[in-house]
Amino acid sequence: MIVVMKRSASEADINAMIAHVESKGLKPNVIRGSERTVIAVVGDERIAGIGSLESGPGVDEVLPILAPYKLASRELKSEPTVVQALGMKVGGVNIGVMAGPCSVESEEQIIASAKAVKAAGATALRGGAFKPRTSPYSFQGMKEEGLKLMAAARDVTGLAVVTEVVASEDVDLVSKYADVLQIGARNMQNYRLLEAAGKSPRPVLLKRGPSATVDEWLLAAEYILDAGNPNVMLCERGIRTFETHTRFTLPLASVPYVQAKTHLPIVIDPSHGTGHTHLVTAMSRAAIAAGADGIIVEVHPNPDKAMSDGYQSMNFDQFAEMMKQCGRIAEAMDRKLG
Amino acid sequence: MIVVMKRSASEADINAMIAHVESKGLKPNVIRGSERTVIAVVGDERIAGIGSLESGPGVDEVLPILAPYKLASRELKSEPTVVQALGMKVGGVNIGVMAGPCSVESEEQIIASAKAVKAAGATALRGGAFKPRTSPYSFQGMKEEGLKLMAAARDVTGLAVVTEVVASEDVDLVSKYADVLQIGARNMQNYRLLEAAGKSPRPVLLKRGPSATVDEWLLAAEYILDAGNPNVMLCERGIRTFETHTRFTLPLASVPYVQAKTHLPIVIDPSHGTGHTHLVTAMSRAAIAAGADGIIVEVHPNPDKAMSDGYQSMNFDQFAEMMKQCGRIAEAMDRKLG
Amino acid sequence: MIVVMKRSASEADINAMIAHVESKGLKPNVIRGSERTVIAVVGDERIAGIGSLESGPGVDEVLPILAPYKLASRELKSEPTVVQALGMKVGGVNIGVMAGPCSVESEEQIIASAKAVKAAGATALRGGAFKPRTSPYSFQGMKEEGLKLMAAARDVTGLAVVTEVVASEDVDLVSKYADVLQIGARNMQNYRLLEAAGKSPRPVLLKRGPSATVDEWLLAAEYILDAGNPNVMLCERGIRTFETHTRFTLPLASVPYVQAKTHLPIVIDPSHGTGHTHLVTAMSRAAIAAGADGIIVEVHPNPDKAMSDGYQSMNFDQFAEMMKQCGRIAEAMDRKLG
Amino acid sequence: MIVVMKRSASEADINAMIAHVESKGLKPNVIRGSERTVIAVVGDERIAGIGSLESGPGVDEVLPILAPYKLASRELKSEPTVVQALGMKVGGVNIGVMAGPCSVESEEQIIASAKAVKAAGATALRGGAFKPRTSPYSFQGMKEEGLKLMAAARDVTGLAVVTEVVASEDVDLVSKYADVLQIGARNMQNYRLLEAAGKSPRPVLLKRGPSATVDEWLLAAEYILDAGNPNVMLCERGIRTFETHTRFTLPLASVPYVQAKTHLPIVIDPSHGTGHTHLVTAMSRAAIAAGADGIIVEVHPNPDKAMSDGYQSMNFDQFAEMMKQCGRIAEAMDRKLG
Repeated sequence: MIVVMKRSASEADINAMIAHVESKGLKPNVIRGSERTVIAVVGDERIAGIGSLESGPGVDEVLPILAPYKLASRELKSEPTVVQALGMKVGGVNIGVMAGPCSVESEEQIIASAKAVKAAGATALRGGAFKPRTSPYSFQGMKEEGLKLMAAARDVTGLAVVTEVVASEDVDLVSKYADVLQIGARNMQNYRLLEAAGKSPRPVLLKRGPSATVDEWLLAAEYILDAGNPNVMLCERGIRTFETHTRFTLPLASVPYVQAKTHLPIVIDPSHGTGHTHLVTAMSRAAIAAGADGIIVEVHPNPDKAMSDGYQSMNFDQFAEMMKQCGRIAEAMDRKLG
Repeated sequence: MIVVMKRSASEADINAMIAHVESKGLKPNVIRGSERTVIAVVGDERIAGIGSLESGPGVDEVLPILAPYKLASRELKSEPTVVQALGMKVGGVNIGVMAGPCSVESEEQIIASAKAVKAAGATALRGGAFKPRTSPYSFQGMKEEGLKLMAAARDVTGLAVVTEVVASEDVDLVSKYADVLQIGARNMQNYRLLEAAGKSPRPVLLKRGPSATVDEWLLAAEYILDAGNPNVMLCERGIRTFETHTRFTLPLASVPYVQAKTHLPIVIDPSHGTGHTHLVTAMSRAAIAAGADGIIVEVHPNPDKAMSDGYQSMNFDQFAEMMKQCGRIAEAMDRKLG
Repeated sequence: MIVVMKRSASEADINAMIAHVESKGLKPNVIRGSERTVIAVVGDERIAGIGSLESGPGVDEVLPILAPYKLASRELKSEPTVVQALGMKVGGVNIGVMAGPCSVESEEQIIASAKAVKAAGATALRGGAFKPRTSPYSFQGMKEEGLKLMAAARDVTGLAVVTEVVASEDVDLVSKYADVLQIGARNMQNYRLLEAAGKSPRPVLLKRGPSATVDEWLLAAEYILDAGNPNVMLCERGIRTFETHTRFTLPLASVPYVQAKTHLPIVIDPSHGTGHTHLVTAMSRAAIAAGADGIIVEVHPNPDKAMSDGYQSMNFDQFAEMMKQCGRIAEAMDRKLG
Repeated sequence: MIVVMKRSASEADINAMIAHVESKGLKPNVIRGSERTVIAVVGDERIAGIGSLESGPGVDEVLPILAPYKLASRELKSEPTVVQALGMKVGGVNIGVMAGPCSVESEEQIIASAKAVKAAGATALRGGAFKPRTSPYSFQGMKEEGLKLMAAARDVTGLAVVTEVVASEDVDLVSKYADVLQIGARNMQNYRLLEAAGKSPRPVLLKRGPSATVDEWLLAAEYILDAGNPNVMLCERGIRTFETHTRFTLPLASVPYVQAKTHLPIVIDPSHGTGHTHLVTAMSRAAIAAGADGIIVEVHPNPDKAMSDGYQSMNFDQFAEMMKQCGRIAEAMDRKLG
């Protein structure tokens, strides 16, 4: 951590800061420049309260140096983590493909979806049973009944089941039916839920919050890792920006950046990341070319009748065509889908 | 809702859309322009699944017209809601002032803070007992012990107690000690928590998520109102933008905008909204001049030793000086603090 | 255009708006819903002053329907435009590759760069002679001397020369030496410059401003097209968002979105779009997989000695390796580099 | 400047960086921490090319310490600059008030506007003669004829004339008629124009670009100061964010932040900063309470017939009422309007 003193800082201010740093058990290195003094603090800056240095007299700003996460860090574990759930592998040479409807709506719908995405090459079935919805008046999901239908679809197809859990008290129930617990963007900083997921035996797909920095996202992963669950997949689903022609902005540079910082695999969600069906194929290809370890895509038998997210869901033909194109890009990357 | 058809839409596409709208029980008005056809849909567009119209063939985009919230709407209830908790009133001629430390750290700290902010004119004591923290390695709060200390501070000063609740299962416990339940920015879309708070007898201070649109924020309030609790205060605490000289960007135009759309009072948090102590006084004044119904400010006996948020906390003297300045602005607005 | 009246709008307000719309020569269609009245305005909404409808009494908001640009629109010209400059083709089956240093620094530097990027498969040489720099104290470019050196590099390699023009009065001079005029992000709305470039015989590479919407960007292109120059290439170079781990956020969904809206080719700049050399290769691959018609990349013989943008420039080996990888992706897209 | 080395950096990497820093004439201080080595560079980091350190082997990131501007800095000149133009003073105890239409449309319109805003207490007349417009099909202003009409309005009222200049070649012409040169948001980084304005005898009102950081904005001011013109007023007019209920987001924390960093006065534009007439009064009051040195407001005799920006213009009565309210806030700040 670097403490930059104001030009107007007095000797007393500087000495007070030196004493304060030492009182935290850290070692200050004082560098007096022509215009300002800076104090480089050596030691673990991730201790409680250190950010409060900024409120000291004569301090201009405090610049952190160390990444705030540890277990998620590539510096701690250099080989990439490969997460596996039934037949799906995410990471290494494998690019996991999770596909299916936004919401589970009926047995017919979920079984048909599972068969179609399996036939096109997906390795997991996504589908929402507990639906966090922006409006209290929207369809809130089929809940446990939806979980049972997904499990039935797994029985038919062998696909791994990926589904969202929205509260810590539901983790056990969802873990009973699902192969992967999804934590949604709205809950990325629901720490009670992260801790509960960290105690589940299931791998976790952790979506990035739409205004979360990468550090905040990796710290959310750190909560899960720290609670004992090593199988975390990061999922980039787009950030909020001034752009309105897409519902969110999908920053694919997250892929190489995150891969340099962490050993955890990264999955891209081009459906939420664009919000429009006609943009999903191009962004799936791009995700794979950027080096993503997986994709998660919304597919529905009849998107214009979907109970949620129809505007960004593909029908079966569109998905099958997309998979062909993605397969060629994966090959050009010396990787394979599924 | 307006369905804008593509220029290339066929008659069949248009007729299919008309039939689809009618099948939802809505009335389509078809307007054929020189360049495009648009279909104005009359009726309540807030029904499940209507957004999926966009995936219909030949559709270019779908523009909503009605605000998606009802109970929070000013169209439903035109007189402003005034929320009261002990001696604090928020709304009408009164500007509520909530002040205190980020975290409760000790009896001495919270009692001293309560006395100081009361002396300066605050009407409520804020303080965190359950702390949602970005890092799992940060201080997580004193939990129930912290709640007890806040209640003790209320006994001494008569201030209303405002404190955060982070999970639905804690609502009863926190309601036992607190006068106002705060729902933090990270939990603005934790719907299980919103529903639980909606069943509590305590007023709720609902912080805006840093990437939430105003509609999403008002829909979160709608969850609480819909569950039966009419006493919701909205709290603007800044949004994530490209600016880095402040931790968040505090958009004060939210005040007049929200007041035109909803009857609920709006509170400004200049501490989180700027992230730097030296900007808090100016933004508190500005909040009041913009017409805010309350402010919530971080105050600590010794900010550079605070266990959290020291960089944005005021000491007692700074707060007292700020209150003098804010009092003059409130008077120029024909309102009063507290 | 749809004029949404407030719920509280009176009959007089509605009639006044109807009269006002008619006075503009447009046809109002009045639709009276259960909650509100909306007026659908048929006719060309792109006339001066129509936006001011919003200030009429009883008006809640005005929603545009038609895209504001015409010449750039895909509805006007459905086949994609292919821009050619010497041996470089941008669009159709060809993916143009423009590479070279941020600034021209010396004859040796620019000739070496030209040879290296040509050997790796580039079809154009980029390099700045007139440099718009954030600080007045930064190196401002070699100006005409730099243009001459680029022309010399073209003589040696046959590469097309792409270079920035920063003011209308320089367009003739730069057109004398360059094969493509680049208009930088800072000047995207310098309309005097756009008009002058519209009268040049050279193709134009128009960078998107970092906070420009896609409509604003296409309207900037419209200025050039309207002035008579049909050879415009759009260049996405990233937008300003809250992300700080990249200098800008590169929204690759611009590629399929823009291709649906306009016939103009789109080029991606992964160097400015990420701001870090180690992210450029992945984003170049992704750009091509997203369907981009070209890429423009910063390459320098010795990036850590570069006079500008060294942190985002590749050295020759890095570029050659990147081109190999990009070639494979292009092949998987049934396209070819250069 | 602090150079943070990667954890994996070798001794050779560190030594190479030390040598490189020394070769720039700067002094490296090497600090070896338990996890990483950082090199604190003492000396003027604003020299050309220093940013390129980041591309060195083993470097993780480079953190700047000094502000990149000098002449604009409060550290250089501690007393605030007060800018004067005719009877308007901006800074110190005075809050300058510039008001008038977006565009000059006719003699009648501009004279009536000047009289009305003068009567309400404005000290300068704003009005556009050269209009930079997003669309080539929009009204582009009356040009020199418009300047003459503004000068006539000055003759009648004594108000200072504030008008935009859009190109370096127009600076002399506009300086002939105007008392203050406005440089618009789109041109904030049009360096040729900044340099020309720096040579004009007229004060300059420099608007912030909607995606400019404060440092970029102050560096743009630095171009003007460096060219010899000390009378620069900064104008905050809102930034681009994800918010859509306002056209831009007006970050009033810019006021106290900028006042701490620079001696130049800061003016707020609540018309562009919100984009809706009904939000302007509240934000003008808030701007003054935040400590702004001036406001600039769009006022039109008949906003719903305005040729530009009618949706954000006030009529005369609205402006007069706003000025009364603002006057009370100014008094509470111990300042006065005009």
